[in-house]
Amino acid sequence: MLAQTPPMGWNSWNTFGNDINAQLVMDTADFFVTSGLKDAGYEYIVMDDLWEADERIDGRLSWDTAKFPHGIKPVADYVHSKGLKFGIYSCAGSHTCAGKPASYGFEEIDAQTFADWGVDFLKYDFCYAPPGVAGPSLYSRMGQALRATGRPILFSICEWGKHKPWEWAAKAGGQMWRSTGDINDSWESILDIGFKRQVGLEAYAGPGHWNDPDMLVVGMYGKGNVAHGGCNDAEYRSHFSLWCLLASPLMIGCDVRNMNAATRDILLNREAIAVNQDPFGRQGYFVGDNDHGGEYSSVWAKPLEDGSIAVGLFNLGERPSRLAVVGWESIGLHDQRPCHVRDLWTHEDLGVHTSNFTTTVARHDVRLVKITPIHS
Amino acid sequence: MLAQTPPMGWNSWNTFGNDINAQLVMDTADFFVTSGLKDAGYEYIVMDDLWEADERIDGRLSWDTAKFPHGIKPVADYVHSKGLKFGIYSCAGSHTCAGKPASYGFEEIDAQTFADWGVDFLKYDFCYAPPGVAGPSLYSRMGQALRATGRPILFSICEWGKHKPWEWAAKAGGQMWRSTGDINDSWESILDIGFKRQVGLEAYAGPGHWNDPDMLVVGMYGKGNVAHGGCNDAEYRSHFSLWCLLASPLMIGCDVRNMNAATRDILLNREAIAVNQDPFGRQGYFVGDNDHGGEYSSVWAKPLEDGSIAVGLFNLGERPSRLAVVGWESIGLHDQRPCHVRDLWTHEDLGVHTSNFTTTVARHDVRLVKITPIHS
Repeated sequence: MLAQTPPMGWNSWNTFGNDINAQLVMDTADFFVTSGLKDAGYEYIVMDDLWEADERIDGRLSWDTAKFPHGIKPVADYVHSKGLKFGIYSCAGSHTCAGKPASYGFEEIDAQTFADWGVDFLKYDFCYAPPGVAGPSLYSRMGQALRATGRPILFSICEWGKHKPWEWAAKAGGQMWRSTGDINDSWESILDIGFKRQVGLEAYAGPGHWNDPDMLVVGMYGKGNVAHGGCNDAEYRSHFSLWCLLASPLMIGCDVRNMNAATRDILLNREAIAVNQDPFGRQGYFVGDNDHGGEYSSVWAKPLEDGSIAVGLFNLGERPSRLAVVGWESIGLHDQRPCHVRDLWTHEDLGVHTSNFTTTVARHDVRLVKITPIHS
Repeated sequence: MLAQTPPMGWNSWNTFGNDINAQLVMDTADFFVTSGLKDAGYEYIVMDDLWEADERIDGRLSWDTAKFPHGIKPVADYVHSKGLKFGIYSCAGSHTCAGKPASYGFEEIDAQTFADWGVDFLKYDFCYAPPGVAGPSLYSRMGQALRATGRPILFSICEWGKHKPWEWAAKAGGQMWRSTGDINDSWESILDIGFKRQVGLEAYAGPGHWNDPDMLVVGMYGKGNVAHGGCNDAEYRSHFSLWCLLASPLMIGCDVRNMNAATRDILLNREAIAVNQDPFGRQGYFVGDNDHGGEYSSVWAKPLEDGSIAVGLFNLGERPSRLAVVGWESIGLHDQRPCHVRDLWTHEDLGVHTSNFTTTVARHDVRLVKITPIHS
């Protein structure tokens, strides 16, 4: 089954936009291997919009020959040769968001084209949808067309949360669906898309079907296609921690060839990734705020397969330091249960705690801990 | 991961109620093997309420010694020796629905007791819930207690759909949750619980977490604990077909030791079971009614992993025969796509159809077909 755990990979859009080509994809694949990203679980190399030729050829989508002189299949083959998977982009309307030919009315031929090229992942956008045609039906058509090819192609539904895709996107064949509009590289966007708009969607996620709060902006630092002021490392750490707790797809959006040490530490944190990829497949949920005069810390929890609970304590306010508390009762544990607490960023055991775990958290930062009940 | 596909097994309640004992459980396990039920995928043998002693002993749940003279563990061991799994019952309140001691305030000790006995499945009911305590929190407590034992125990949440369990039951650790009150052995109950109350719940189901429209009444014919007039074979076939399309748990409720040929044909229909157990894990959905003057046929569809679509065409009205139609567009296929159609009850190929499949269906009966797009 596809997407048994949340998909992990990289997508060209956030940093590169129009500046994509075969070499970038192949270099990124190389770097997935040499940097340890592949070993950490990152798998899909996805080329977003603007790979396409301006017109179909014999009814089929074709490529921008300046960017992809030998076409798409050799690029996909190269990605496969590295033990990775290759993704591409199209749109449910008549044109892509950047104005290239898209798949409305061509769903079957395009799905077959992608299958012939060896595509493993399709991000399917929502621009230029034909008026009067229900959005969900457009996605069902492509979902069915992809399945009919017989090739396992992960179907990433990018409908921006317009028509509550959590209610129909899995039925339409999607393994993941965007629940909001686009993220950008700013703390405000992380607060809005991550901490605000995902609340209550946890019931719709599980193995094979995931809410998608959009790609990661970790490591962009205000550069690239969706730059918007950028974030600091604490903010990127909070962003990544929340996406891990939410069992969100982890699609890297920075230029992985030029990651600094802080970005590597975030994206390659195996203990955080293990929370994201936990086979229990539960999306984490908002537990509550410790609210004191509007300056609050926010607690999120994700139950894990082994009986432990991953908890994120976030300082979302502007004070340099905030107290944050998670009480055992609030996450389904008995008040008197002794539990091991481990910090998943410092990789330290924090001892045995009973009834609650209390800590301070720096501005816009996070304490991500794993709380493991001790067997009586 | 538990319940990757919908759980399959047997539960004592529908037929036996209070008339349970160690011999019945062991005989049923024997019969699972000799009848082919085990080979067909049925796995869990679940003992429902009324296995308990009237009082706890040293704080622990104990058994009715008249029914289980050697206790529960030897029975579980016997079930395991047959390559099957053993399930038990308790309740989130102070007492079980039949008035025996239950698990409120004893969640951890009871979970550990069940783990010590080798229990693989817990059905957890909702009687005598303490006033003023939120129902979902009662289930979270037991879900967490089960996980803390370290033994994989499937958690079957039986909250009767009171507080929209589809929104919280997976988060509480449940692999399945009852979406309605109890079924009984009548066509009216099947219509109400199956065809009416499951509509719209399909978004909440997937591998590891399933809506549960209650146990099967197939083969009861008006006998046993939840007898209520009984059904005929066409009605049981429709009931089973719908539960397969809904990716519902298939928990047999009849006395499997005394199944007649028609009941065996239904419960052992491997092509219908394959629809239920399809690894894509989508819950089927209501497509629409062919409504003509109130006498209608009803169409349900379930997308399958291989790109085909299982479709049930039901005659829910009182006419001896009704025309029923499924159009390709209504299930996400292009109108002109040629498709193979196969009847999953007669096990016959029905040829290649384009644009739609039209058939007649007898009163309260079903045509269950698999529609497979032909690759262009």
